[in-house]
Amino acid sequence: MAAPRNAFYAQSGGVTAVINASACGVIETARANHSKMGKVYAGRNGIIGALTEELIDTSRDSAAAIALLRATPSGAFGSCRYKLKSVEANRREYERLLEVFKAHDIGYFFYNGGGDSADTCFKVSQLSESMGYPIQAIHVPKTVDNDLPVTDCCPGFGSVAKYVAVSALEASFDVRSMARTSTKVFVLEVMGRHAGWIAAAGGLIEDEGIPVVVLFPEIPFDEKQFTDRVDALVKQHGYCTVIVSEGCHRPDGSFLAEQGSKDAFGHAQLGGAAPVVAGIVKRALGHKFHWAVADYLQRAARHIASATDVQQAYEVGAAAVELALAGHNAVMPTIERVSDTPYQYRIGMAPLSAVANVEKFMPRDFITADGFGITEACKRYLRPLIQGEDFPQFSNGLPVYATLANVAVARKLPPFELR
Amino acid sequence: MAAPRNAFYAQSGGVTAVINASACGVIETARANHSKMGKVYAGRNGIIGALTEELIDTSRDSAAAIALLRATPSGAFGSCRYKLKSVEANRREYERLLEVFKAHDIGYFFYNGGGDSADTCFKVSQLSESMGYPIQAIHVPKTVDNDLPVTDCCPGFGSVAKYVAVSALEASFDVRSMARTSTKVFVLEVMGRHAGWIAAAGGLIEDEGIPVVVLFPEIPFDEKQFTDRVDALVKQHGYCTVIVSEGCHRPDGSFLAEQGSKDAFGHAQLGGAAPVVAGIVKRALGHKFHWAVADYLQRAARHIASATDVQQAYEVGAAAVELALAGHNAVMPTIERVSDTPYQYRIGMAPLSAVANVEKFMPRDFITADGFGITEACKRYLRPLIQGEDFPQFSNGLPVYATLANVAVARKLPPFELR
Repeated sequence: MAAPRNAFYAQSGGVTAVINASACGVIETARANHSKMGKVYAGRNGIIGALTEELIDTSRDSAAAIALLRATPSGAFGSCRYKLKSVEANRREYERLLEVFKAHDIGYFFYNGGGDSADTCFKVSQLSESMGYPIQAIHVPKTVDNDLPVTDCCPGFGSVAKYVAVSALEASFDVRSMARTSTKVFVLEVMGRHAGWIAAAGGLIEDEGIPVVVLFPEIPFDEKQFTDRVDALVKQHGYCTVIVSEGCHRPDGSFLAEQGSKDAFGHAQLGGAAPVVAGIVKRALGHKFHWAVADYLQRAARHIASATDVQQAYEVGAAAVELALAGHNAVMPTIERVSDTPYQYRIGMAPLSAVANVEKFMPRDFITADGFGITEACKRYLRPLIQGEDFPQFSNGLPVYATLANVAVARKLPPFELR
Repeated sequence: MAAPRNAFYAQSGGVTAVINASACGVIETARANHSKMGKVYAGRNGIIGALTEELIDTSRDSAAAIALLRATPSGAFGSCRYKLKSVEANRREYERLLEVFKAHDIGYFFYNGGGDSADTCFKVSQLSESMGYPIQAIHVPKTVDNDLPVTDCCPGFGSVAKYVAVSALEASFDVRSMARTSTKVFVLEVMGRHAGWIAAAGGLIEDEGIPVVVLFPEIPFDEKQFTDRVDALVKQHGYCTVIVSEGCHRPDGSFLAEQGSKDAFGHAQLGGAAPVVAGIVKRALGHKFHWAVADYLQRAARHIASATDVQQAYEVGAAAVELALAGHNAVMPTIERVSDTPYQYRIGMAPLSAVANVEKFMPRDFITADGFGITEACKRYLRPLIQGEDFPQFSNGLPVYATLANVAVARKLPPFELR
């Protein structure tokens, strides 16, 4: 009996607090099926590692090290922003991929990423037909933006949502304490260039009694309506919190974050949306403000990850291996919601043709009529996703996160130049 | 036997993740000594509540509600930024304070704040002599800035230090993942206008293998030396993390955060130091960057509080009551370090005359010779302060924080106008 074929796994695009939990699911499930699947080779820095034949032999890491991936944020093997062109436009890269796959007897391709990555995975899945190399390509969903179609939610999102809701709640308590003589408006900028899912999570603190305004990329920013809303909330509550998506923009399409600000030396400065929004409040209403930009902190915050999210990230990784072993190609495991309360879901499957390059935005009925908050339907959707805590272990006051050995697989091919 | 005299407690200045733990220590210890100390009246919005006779009757909250204060960030009774002038300069306010104290039979004054507040507390402590009203004033130390003298550390600091170290570690893992094709330098701005203690905590991630540069307010910013250091670290590690104090400034005293930036409309924009530092890196080295400004998130982050800090915050609150009952006036409980490893401390006492208006900066030997990192002596100092986790309870994915009834004490005096 021939040795089972090996697998290639790569992380793609912006990393998350739980993408390594998916890696853990892939590797542990592959190990459990070692009679049917060989080694899992990880791409160093994503798909680039496949092109440059920089493969990491994950079998060199102990079971304990791999298990610790479940509790480790970021991409343990390195990720990249690199989108393969079509086979027609860049045949050279696909031929190289096949050379590397052949050289290392790789028959399974697991690609862990968002919409762009699903497109890459889809292209690889077609190599069986287009270039006559038998390979099964399975996409493992990941994105803090929660903008993949078909699946009810995306691993990575629940944890950033929990981070944003917890952080916004805590900062709002702070502002509430100080509002009498100091800060009355706190602005928190969160990720989301096109879809407002992350900002929406900030809206959950309304249920904790916090006056909150949410600015979505889906709703063009109306300065007057916004300052009127803030004014009303501050008059009623003495303070308010504003959650602004980085992608919030004016009706003409210009981002709030890119208002052409320059520093004292005349250099263009990449602003944030938060200071712009804070400035608008200050000028219109005169309130003292504070602002924060969470940036990477939000998507890296494994210490406050959602247990639901960690579990789902693991499960889609495990399911990807199971789908491959069941003979599937060009598919992605999905999360199918069965019920809101109690929250139940099952792992489903979507064809990559339906996933690649499709973005899922906030439905209009998840946003309140005035455009500044989330509806009960949205809250029903969001609440289960931030449920549960899955704290990492701590040592000397800091979380214990995995740094793998990342032992290189010996090269068999000549170098390849990325262009 | 006369009824025991009541106590006044107020929170002052910027709030922290654990100032309510001190409130909990005060109230629970007062309750345990109810034969010697009457009710604890909290000032609504700090000392302002004493002036306006807006007192909160903490006896109206259950033991469970008070216990939950230990796990609740921010100031449960409201805080304020309001510094009493000297008795000579504003006799009217002191006379009003005494009227309110007399009207409510207040014999104990507990003031929970930083250096400015210690000054206020000191002035109140002198009312016994200067205005013939018997009162004991005890200061309860609190400040994320860790800049109070005498005490080894300040409650509030350990938790913000833990937040900064954890967040910087997590974000650094993120950058490390992405550095091959994307972000190479991540800049995190933290609090600290004059003292660099909070930024120093970011330096702890060096022990986790992260290349990190720390910019302190104590060290004038040298742009060339800084970009050289970043360049060397990126060349060696592929990426680096920068922690910048909000108070970081150039040799001429100008803050990095206040470089007179203007938005597209010509409005002055309150920048942050982080985007300025990121811009400097970009121009000098061309690296892709990301930046975050933690602002209130850092001092409100009760979810990742240091267990050591929570415990010490509680203990100084409890000690304040015990010191008062032992007859002390014009003092502050302090934390005296007995040993680093294992970490041991005891609660001591300092006269307010030695505390008021004195700021404690980072000793030069806590900062590396090049000015961009922390020394082993500094690490020995910091490590115990972030030890231990004290997670709040969670419900539906969010922390359970106390919102007290804050029942008002009936007024007995005519209104008082703040000027």
